[in-house]
Amino acid sequence: MDLKTLAANVDGWLAASRTQILAAMTAPVSVHTKTGRNDLVTNVDAANQQFLVAAIRAAYPEAKIEGEEGTAARVDDLSGLVFFVDPIDGTMNFVKQRAHFAVMLGVYEDGQPVYGAILDVMRNELVTGGPTLSARLNGQPLPAPADPPLKDGLLGASGPMTIHNYLHLGDAALASSGARISGSAGMEFKAIVQGQLVGYVSYLQPWDIAAGMAIGAGFGLVCTRPDGGPIDLLAPGVVVAAMPQAHAELLTRMQAK
Amino acid sequence: MDLKTLAANVDGWLAASRTQILAAMTAPVSVHTKTGRNDLVTNVDAANQQFLVAAIRAAYPEAKIEGEEGTAARVDDLSGLVFFVDPIDGTMNFVKQRAHFAVMLGVYEDGQPVYGAILDVMRNELVTGGPTLSARLNGQPLPAPADPPLKDGLLGASGPMTIHNYLHLGDAALASSGARISGSAGMEFKAIVQGQLVGYVSYLQPWDIAAGMAIGAGFGLVCTRPDGGPIDLLAPGVVVAAMPQAHAELLTRMQAK
Repeated sequence: MDLKTLAANVDGWLAASRTQILAAMTAPVSVHTKTGRNDLVTNVDAANQQFLVAAIRAAYPEAKIEGEEGTAARVDDLSGLVFFVDPIDGTMNFVKQRAHFAVMLGVYEDGQPVYGAILDVMRNELVTGGPTLSARLNGQPLPAPADPPLKDGLLGASGPMTIHNYLHLGDAALASSGARISGSAGMEFKAIVQGQLVGYVSYLQPWDIAAGMAIGAGFGLVCTRPDGGPIDLLAPGVVVAAMPQAHAELLTRMQAK
Repeated sequence: MDLKTLAANVDGWLAASRTQILAAMTAPVSVHTKTGRNDLVTNVDAANQQFLVAAIRAAYPEAKIEGEEGTAARVDDLSGLVFFVDPIDGTMNFVKQRAHFAVMLGVYEDGQPVYGAILDVMRNELVTGGPTLSARLNGQPLPAPADPPLKDGLLGASGPMTIHNYLHLGDAALASSGARISGSAGMEFKAIVQGQLVGYVSYLQPWDIAAGMAIGAGFGLVCTRPDGGPIDLLAPGVVVAAMPQAHAELLTRMQAK
């Protein structure tokens, strides 16, 4: 698998996704709930997942694909090449705001990150990167994010976890420069890549984190479970993704009795 | 006072502010704290307030000016023409994110709204309006925002108030489609004008709310204290700004024992 070709393919698929999503937004969007009243899916999510899955299958027929909207079979081991697809991340924002949503692709090989890409559709801003690549915004290299203590950084956070102070996340947010809640994991990871947030804590599915964790591997972003254990890309769970100093403080706070 | 001239003046001053702020961002920014570690002011805030105050004084020498950064004398009554100036709203975002901040001007006459303008500097998006004007985004008329029940709208909220569940705001956020925390009153009011948020609740200064309340007067946005009383533009306080259905539910929830 050639990394340069892979990156060009992924970036191209996201650009094509954007064109199709913008076209779909000119017609009424059909919205359904999934696990609860605030967990939405639309015809646009489904169509874009179908498009991305077809594109991946054509270029990488041997790859496994794990996607949010269930057109692909669930991946049950991480051997070989695996694509994680989030066709619209932040579907509530897509429905209510028509902004602040992302398309994400994360590529892994034998469980190790290879490449990640997050597209802010309405801003037309694409961040990309990987463990052997510098992070880029629309192709331009980004400086590595700073590594301040938690008190000097803004913290992206899950709304419900923050409000319930689950694992002391509300208190941790108050100890930072401020909590920011966007409703889209993609927007939060993109902000980390751009140095706008020092970290992000939320309950995430594998397709919510795969792209951001792959890009962050290029600049020292630490992604773990709250107990410090490794992320399991086969199951959902709470994710602590932060630059090293803030990550250490977040874990200390979240592990307190 | 001619409204068309006033609107053209205000819009022009904000465009000029943007040019100056973008130029100032190419040099190091000098940051100081005000009332606490997360209450910041920079040389850019101060310079832009000076510019806006000078522009207002030249065009409307009889007007009173209330501004965030204290170059103007405090206004102690609302008679006559009053300009509320927020030279950079969301200074923490300006410092940490270099995005997600606003310049705001709100114009009142004898305590009644006349015109408001909110400029998202980095997106170069200006929303404007007033009680006798339709709301506009970069000059294009915006549809009136919908008036859904709270459960069907996203709620902009103060981070600390939400986390502390002050006046039940955390619970109210959980009852909505989701909390969104941006760290800038200007960004929240702009989102309301664009129909992206159903409301916003925070502890605000007069210059934080003046522009948004003036624009909202054109499409039925309800702005009150949590007890339902009128906003006092001479003092800070908790503000509940929302479309009518959500506003009524927010007040019921916030007044509960």
